[in-house]
Amino acid sequence: MSESATLAELAKMVDGVVRGDASVRIKGVGGIEDAGPDQITWIAHEKYLGALSASRAGAVVVSRHFGETPMPAILCEDPAFAVAKVLARFAPPVPQPAVGVHPTAVVAESARLGRDVRLGPHVVVGEGARIGDRSVLHAGVYVGDASTLGSDCVLWPGVVVRERCTLGNRVTLHPNVTVGADGFGYHFRESGHHKIPQTGTVEIGDDVEVGASSCIDRAKFGVTRIGAGTKIDNLVQIAHNVQIGAHCVIVAQCGIAGSTRLGQLVVLGGQVGVRDHLTLGDGLRAAACCCISKDFPAATVVNGIPAVENHQYLREQVQVRRLPELSATVKELSKRVERLESAADHPEPR
Amino acid sequence: MSESATLAELAKMVDGVVRGDASVRIKGVGGIEDAGPDQITWIAHEKYLGALSASRAGAVVVSRHFGETPMPAILCEDPAFAVAKVLARFAPPVPQPAVGVHPTAVVAESARLGRDVRLGPHVVVGEGARIGDRSVLHAGVYVGDASTLGSDCVLWPGVVVRERCTLGNRVTLHPNVTVGADGFGYHFRESGHHKIPQTGTVEIGDDVEVGASSCIDRAKFGVTRIGAGTKIDNLVQIAHNVQIGAHCVIVAQCGIAGSTRLGQLVVLGGQVGVRDHLTLGDGLRAAACCCISKDFPAATVVNGIPAVENHQYLREQVQVRRLPELSATVKELSKRVERLESAADHPEPR
Amino acid sequence: MSESATLAELAKMVDGVVRGDASVRIKGVGGIEDAGPDQITWIAHEKYLGALSASRAGAVVVSRHFGETPMPAILCEDPAFAVAKVLARFAPPVPQPAVGVHPTAVVAESARLGRDVRLGPHVVVGEGARIGDRSVLHAGVYVGDASTLGSDCVLWPGVVVRERCTLGNRVTLHPNVTVGADGFGYHFRESGHHKIPQTGTVEIGDDVEVGASSCIDRAKFGVTRIGAGTKIDNLVQIAHNVQIGAHCVIVAQCGIAGSTRLGQLVVLGGQVGVRDHLTLGDGLRAAACCCISKDFPAATVVNGIPAVENHQYLREQVQVRRLPELSATVKELSKRVERLESAADHPEPR
Repeated sequence: MSESATLAELAKMVDGVVRGDASVRIKGVGGIEDAGPDQITWIAHEKYLGALSASRAGAVVVSRHFGETPMPAILCEDPAFAVAKVLARFAPPVPQPAVGVHPTAVVAESARLGRDVRLGPHVVVGEGARIGDRSVLHAGVYVGDASTLGSDCVLWPGVVVRERCTLGNRVTLHPNVTVGADGFGYHFRESGHHKIPQTGTVEIGDDVEVGASSCIDRAKFGVTRIGAGTKIDNLVQIAHNVQIGAHCVIVAQCGIAGSTRLGQLVVLGGQVGVRDHLTLGDGLRAAACCCISKDFPAATVVNGIPAVENHQYLREQVQVRRLPELSATVKELSKRVERLESAADHPEPR
Repeated sequence: MSESATLAELAKMVDGVVRGDASVRIKGVGGIEDAGPDQITWIAHEKYLGALSASRAGAVVVSRHFGETPMPAILCEDPAFAVAKVLARFAPPVPQPAVGVHPTAVVAESARLGRDVRLGPHVVVGEGARIGDRSVLHAGVYVGDASTLGSDCVLWPGVVVRERCTLGNRVTLHPNVTVGADGFGYHFRESGHHKIPQTGTVEIGDDVEVGASSCIDRAKFGVTRIGAGTKIDNLVQIAHNVQIGAHCVIVAQCGIAGSTRLGQLVVLGGQVGVRDHLTLGDGLRAAACCCISKDFPAATVVNGIPAVENHQYLREQVQVRRLPELSATVKELSKRVERLESAADHPEPR
Repeated sequence: MSESATLAELAKMVDGVVRGDASVRIKGVGGIEDAGPDQITWIAHEKYLGALSASRAGAVVVSRHFGETPMPAILCEDPAFAVAKVLARFAPPVPQPAVGVHPTAVVAESARLGRDVRLGPHVVVGEGARIGDRSVLHAGVYVGDASTLGSDCVLWPGVVVRERCTLGNRVTLHPNVTVGADGFGYHFRESGHHKIPQTGTVEIGDDVEVGASSCIDRAKFGVTRIGAGTKIDNLVQIAHNVQIGAHCVIVAQCGIAGSTRLGQLVVLGGQVGVRDHLTLGDGLRAAACCCISKDFPAATVVNGIPAVENHQYLREQVQVRRLPELSATVKELSKRVERLESAADHPEPR
C-alpha cells in the first residue's frame, strides 16, 4: 500500500488524535528538514524542536501534551512508535522471487519445501533440508544438508547456512550472512595447530534478525544458540558455543568469543568485544567500543577497556581528563614540601 | 600493456628526468629488497634509504633533489605518484566477463542494459533495474529491482545491491559488498523489539570505491548517502541515514552509526567507531582505533576512547605513562609531610 | 563413523587408560552439564570440577593424576587433545558436492582440474586456473583467471578468489571469504584520490584456514603472504603486502594494515588492530582489543591502546584503577601542606 491517506486515517491507525485540519492528504514520511507538504514528520529529540518552524512538512507527529505546532499534528502516546506504523503504511513492497522454485535453483530430491515458498535464481538446498511455509530464499542463497528453516523466514542473497543448522519462524538473515561455519578451535602440538572438529550446530530462535556479513559459528559440540527475538546488526562475530538469550540487541561489529553466555535483554553497543567463557546477566548494557573481560551480574551498565561498571568508568575518566592538572599539583606540592623541609632544617632566627 | 619500456620512456610518462643510463629496459616495479635488474623501485620513506645500496633494482624513482644512487634514477616531483603511473603502465589486464549477458545470468525483462555491459555467469538483475554503459557485473552479482548503476561501474563477485539503490559512474564494489540491506531499527515494547520498516534507499556518488564485505545500509526513510570520490576500505559498516561527504577516506573495519554526517575530505583510520547522530566537520582526521562520541568541527585531529583532540590525547597519554612515577612521588610526599607534621607537633629542643 | 564405541576402544585411541568399567558404550561427546549417559565429557578447567558430581555423563576424560570421579574415566596426558580425537571419531561426515563438475558450474576451457575434484552448483572457474587433486569447491565459489589451488583444499559457498592468487595444499576458506581484492591505495592530488593499481597477488601456504567473511587483499605489487599452518578467524582484515609467518593465530575481527610483517607463531587476540609498515617478532602475543602502533621484538606480550609491553600495561592499569584514590590523597596533602605553611608563617607561641 503506497497510496495517500488523510491525517484522520493515520491518526486512527496510531491511536492518536488530530489537532488542526484532519483532511490533509499524506503520501509518506520525511525528516524535519527534508519533508515536503505531502509528507508527515515527527519530533524525535527535543533538539529538533527549533527546526519545526522552518519545516515544510504537511503534518507532524508529537506526544500528547506537546504545544502548538505550525502545521496540523497527530498527538499520541509514543511518537516514534506511531511513525514506525506510518512508515509501514507507506512502505513500498519489498521485492521477492515468485512463489515456487526458480528453474536455475538446485534443490536436492530429499529436501522438503513448505507451502508457498519462494526460491530465487541459483538457490541451492541440500539433502534432507526443510524450508518452512512461505519462506523466501533470495537469489544465490545456500542451505546445507539437513538444515531446517521455520515458516516465514527471509534469507537475502549471498546467505550461507551450512549443514544441520536450525532456524525458527520469521527469521531474517541479511545479505552475505554465514551461519554454521566451523568454530575456531585448534590444539597446539609441536608440529603446529591441529584442528579440533567442530561437530555441533547452530539454533536460531523465532523472530531473530541477523545483519549483513555477520557470522555465527557452529558449536564444537552441542549448539551455538541465539534466543528468540534477538536482533543482531551487521558484521558481528558470534563464536562457537556462545549462548545468547532472548530479546538481546547486538550492534554492528561486536565480537563474542567462544562459550560466553548472555542472559536475555542484553544490549551491546557497536564494536564491543566479549571474552570467551564469560557470563553476562540479564539486561546488562555495554557502551560502544568497550571490551568485556570478566563476568558481570544482571542489569549492570559497563564501559571501558577492560570494561568496569559505568559509574567507576566515569569516575576514572574524569580523573584521566584531570591528569595533567593533578601532575602539576603534585609538582608544586613537592616544591612546597621542600621549602618546608628546608625551613625546618634551618629555622629562621626568632 | 605489460611489455618492457626504457627508462627514458618511463621518465617522459611521469614528467621526470633520467640520471644515468636512459636506455635501461624495465619490465615492472618491485620493492627495494625484492626488485631485480629488470625492475624499477623507489624511495618511499627515508628509512629505506640504507637498503638502496644493497638493492638489485635496475633503476629507482627519487625526488628531484635526491643525491647519488647506485643505479640509474628517474628524478621527479612526486615519486609515489610517479610509481603509481609506472605500476599502471605494467599492470596485467584485470579479467572481466565477455561483452554481453552470460547465458546463465537471469535478467528481468524490464531491466535496461546500457551499451557494452558485461554480465558474468549467474548474475541476477531485477525488474526495472538499469545498468549503465560498459559496466561490469562479475559472476554471481545481484542487483535488485529498480536499482540504477551509472556507466563504467565494476561489481565483483558476491556483491549484493538491494532494490531502489543508486550508484553513480565509475563506482567499484569489491567482492561480497552489501548495499541497501535494512538499517538496524527497532522499537521496544513489552512484547519485544518491533522492526521499524527501513523504507529508504542508498545513493553512492561517482568514483566511489567500497572494499570487500563492507555494508552500507538503506535509510529508514530518505537516503543513506556516500559522496563522490569517497574511498571505503574492507569490512566497514555504514549505518542507515549516514551522510558521507565527498573525497573521504574510511579505512578498514570502521563503523559509523545511524544518521551521523561526515563533511568532505574526512579521514578515519582503521577500526574507528563513530556514534549515531553526530556531525564531523570537513577534513577531520581520526587516529586508528579511536571511538568518536561527540561532534567535532572541521580540520580537527582526534584520538582516544572516547576521542578528544589529539594534542589533549597526547598530553594525557604522557601522564598515563608516568602514572606509576606520579604515584610513587605522592607516596613519598605523604611520608615527608607526615615527618614535617610530627616535627611541628614535637619540635626538637633548641 | 558415528556408531558407538566402548570406553576401552576410545582409551586405546587416545593413548589413555580406563579407570572403572571399560565396557561402557559411548556415542558422542558432551559438556559436563549437557552430556547424557551415552556421552563422554572432560574436565577442561578446574572450575568445572564441582559440576562433575552433578553430571549425567557416562564417562569422563581427565589427566593422569586426577582423583576419583563419579563415573568411569579415561586417564591421559592431555585431556583436551584426547577429546579432540574422540570428537573426530564421532563427527558426522561433512557434506560435499559429488566428485566431478556440477552441470550448472561454469569452468573455462583452459582451466585444469586435478583428479577427484568436486565442483558444486554455480561454481565459476576462470581461464588458466588450476584446481589440485581432491579439492572441493562448494556451491557458488568463484576462482578467477590463472589462480592456483593445491590439493585437498576446501572452499565453502560464497568464497571469492580473484585472479592470479595461489593457495597451497589443504587450505580451507570458510563461507564468503575474499582473497585477492584490490588493496586500499590512493594518491591524493588536488582533484581527489587517484587509485594506485594493485597489480600484485596473494600467496597462501599449506594448511592455512581462513574464517568466514575475512578479507586478504592482493599486493600493490609483489605478494601478500600467509605462512603455512596459520589460522585466521572470521571477519579479519589483511591488507595489501602484509607478510604473515607460519603457524600464527589471528582471532576474529583483527585488522592488519599494509606492509606489516608478522614473524611465526604470533598470536593476536580478537579485535586487535596493527598499524602499517610494522614488524612483529616471532611468538609475539597481543591481548584482545589492543592496538599495536610500533614494532615489537620476538616473544613480547603486548596490551593496551596504544599497545605497550604487558607488564607495563598492567602496572598502568593498576594506577588508573587507583586514580580517584590518588587524586583524593593529593587533595588531602595539599591541605596538610597548607596547614604546615600557615603554621610556619605564624608559629605558635612557645
